[in-house]
Amino acid sequence: MKSKLVLSLLALGIAGSAFAQIKPEDAIKWRQSGYGAMEWSMARIKMNIDGSFNKEEVIKSANVIQAIANSGMGSLYLPGTDKGKGWEATRAKPEIWTEKEKLTKAGGAFNREANELARIAATGDAAAVKAQFGKLADTCKGCHDDFKAKK
Amino acid sequence: MKSKLVLSLLALGIAGSAFAQIKPEDAIKWRQSGYGAMEWSMARIKMNIDGSFNKEEVIKSANVIQAIANSGMGSLYLPGTDKGKGWEATRAKPEIWTEKEKLTKAGGAFNREANELARIAATGDAAAVKAQFGKLADTCKGCHDDFKAKK
Repeated sequence: MKSKLVLSLLALGIAGSAFAQIKPEDAIKWRQSGYGAMEWSMARIKMNIDGSFNKEEVIKSANVIQAIANSGMGSLYLPGTDKGKGWEATRAKPEIWTEKEKLTKAGGAFNREANELARIAATGDAAAVKAQFGKLADTCKGCHDDFKAKK
Repeated sequence: MKSKLVLSLLALGIAGSAFAQIKPEDAIKWRQSGYGAMEWSMARIKMNIDGSFNKEEVIKSANVIQAIANSGMGSLYLPGTDKGKGWEATRAKPEIWTEKEKLTKAGGAFNREANELARIAATGDAAAVKAQFGKLADTCKGCHDDFKAKK
């Protein structure tokens, strides 16, 4: 049983000592993945707002955003990951490491609005989802403006 | 208010008509992002199993996996996305589109084990998390063997 688990983990590239320390390229790739999954979820909610509103689809999308928002992805902004490549070169601005107070405030606002969107999505109220989606998008944009370099 | 929302969405690259149809490169990027976020979460749980066990960190990680597992990411395997590049060239095997029954079964097993891991993580029982993590990893590996091309 144990050897089967080890084999599975090796096959997945998840082997013991490899994760005693997270490689910078993995940290960058994983945070880009988190944002990518949220981008999909935001896009999907937008399609439901603009088109026919499928309550279950909106709930699933809001749940993904909420889980990632609450995951503590900030732990992936490790020292040495201000430069480097994950899926692509990181666009993290130096301010992430120098303006902690501002970043914490922006992150807190994002988390609050993400949790609120998940709460509202569960009610199935399309108009309320639309309003809350806008509030959440504002917090995304605010953080990108300050902490993410333009392409 | 409305124009502010529109501006925010434009800034995020989420503009109305752009999502009437999902671009193949976005579909591929978004599903790669979902797997990347789950890879991080699996790695983080593994670090907690191998090292000092932080219940909250494991719960957060299991919640990310659960939310993505239940998100219906299968909808991103759109026609025309069997080839092409998201973050990188897709490694989706043709069998995804030809072996529906096998795929549905594999996806169902993955969802069940992901939901079970989230349930167990909430109890904080490290030994039970370890056992369930192994079961979930087996379903990841099973699906990769059949439906994901090797590098």
